[in-house]
Amino acid sequence: MLVNGVPGNTLSIRDRGFLYGDGVFRTLCVREGRPQHWPLHYQKLQNDCEKLGINCPDFACLSAELAGLMPAHPNAVYKMIVTRGLSVRGYAPAPDAEPTHVWDISAIPAYPDNCRTGVTLRLCALRLAAQPRLAGIKHLNRLENVLAAAECTDADEGLLLDTEGRVIEGVRSNVFLMAGDRLITPDLSRCGVAGVQRDRVIAYAREIGLSVEVRDVELAELCAADAVFLTNSVFGLWPVAQFEQCRWLDLSRTVQFQVLFEQDESWLN
Amino acid sequence: MLVNGVPGNTLSIRDRGFLYGDGVFRTLCVREGRPQHWPLHYQKLQNDCEKLGINCPDFACLSAELAGLMPAHPNAVYKMIVTRGLSVRGYAPAPDAEPTHVWDISAIPAYPDNCRTGVTLRLCALRLAAQPRLAGIKHLNRLENVLAAAECTDADEGLLLDTEGRVIEGVRSNVFLMAGDRLITPDLSRCGVAGVQRDRVIAYAREIGLSVEVRDVELAELCAADAVFLTNSVFGLWPVAQFEQCRWLDLSRTVQFQVLFEQDESWLN
Repeated sequence: MLVNGVPGNTLSIRDRGFLYGDGVFRTLCVREGRPQHWPLHYQKLQNDCEKLGINCPDFACLSAELAGLMPAHPNAVYKMIVTRGLSVRGYAPAPDAEPTHVWDISAIPAYPDNCRTGVTLRLCALRLAAQPRLAGIKHLNRLENVLAAAECTDADEGLLLDTEGRVIEGVRSNVFLMAGDRLITPDLSRCGVAGVQRDRVIAYAREIGLSVEVRDVELAELCAADAVFLTNSVFGLWPVAQFEQCRWLDLSRTVQFQVLFEQDESWLN
Repeated sequence: MLVNGVPGNTLSIRDRGFLYGDGVFRTLCVREGRPQHWPLHYQKLQNDCEKLGINCPDFACLSAELAGLMPAHPNAVYKMIVTRGLSVRGYAPAPDAEPTHVWDISAIPAYPDNCRTGVTLRLCALRLAAQPRLAGIKHLNRLENVLAAAECTDADEGLLLDTEGRVIEGVRSNVFLMAGDRLITPDLSRCGVAGVQRDRVIAYAREIGLSVEVRDVELAELCAADAVFLTNSVFGLWPVAQFEQCRWLDLSRTVQFQVLFEQDESWLN
């Protein structure tokens, strides 16, 4: 673990990341000493920082730190957290705040066998609030995800709707529907987190000639889809076999996207 | 500063308060060695913990810590933060997580002279998202307040509406309207933070025979009110002299509530 480039696993109780969740993060896998899609993760981190007015550490700095950590942890989950830094009391951010950046490393989880072949998805009772100013950003205000995750412990993943009942995302994943030659994924301009893998899937789908629709998605559409799958930078792609009373028996439709998660650095690094 | 009862000013980067804003807090003043309304603050802290399923440290434990800190800091702002504690990776909380509790102490701020006689309030562009599961709770997901505070640096306080345009609160305060013999304050069941001073004002208003209405409040009502004031456990009561183009020249209507903030422990401790 590194805190502002220095080995350590603590930070100040005056850090705004702790006090207000005033920061952003990204989670990526390192496999065999190769960080998966690090430039894409950095780009998202930087965009999210910019939306919140946080000074993002530069790519060279974070890349050098990452390179220094990998020899000891060549196969692991790496989490990069950037906060607005230390605070005097009060919500108003000082414009000259020096950001805090933290690398946290943990083991790559072992998922149940069914995950490659089809997961169970459950509807969360919690509905995501619409906040356009924070939508899409992977920020540190994640209480909605915490409460939703606590609800869905008996399924592989929970499905989150917004307050209007539209499909938004999984608790820790983005969601895709396939219907004929169309790939559909929810618009995230009101709420939700726009993951790196979501961008990769969208770009790849266009490349292979699918029609891609990023728009509002009703729950009825998900239930009627030919296939549904979830993406996340740690677990990769999970086809959905079951959502409440809906079943998908033929999961072959999603196989074409597995290439994005199995061929290492091959496409859209 | 105390972290889990031990002098210190750092905490683990694996603390869920940092990772997800998975915690709650309260801020109170200690004046001349007397903590202002500590039992009420504790009650709120405990209620908020319960709503999030966090095990709140007990009153005796926190009171003893507070008593130990006061001799060295007899006039200060005390912030008590309780988080769900350490986390393994992932949003789902472990049911047996041992909570983290932190005391942070800072100087009582010196406010501009106008604050006692009438502050300027400005409308924030940011609208509060409706999330009933988190409404009222003083939790650590405070990015909306951070962004709103950054907008309103040229006024004493910012006024926050919800996405439907209803009046909810100040960036760091609760808001009250007076109209005839009625005291009106926004319902906080969709969003907003229910402060200790809000409860005290409501209880006192009933005691002195005012009709109290806790309900949805339109912005037009605020503009038409006989008086508007703000409350907060650190600054106490601020009468509003100006909100955008609205002016309140006679601020005597709010004087009756100053007793709650000036007579020390006298009422509803």
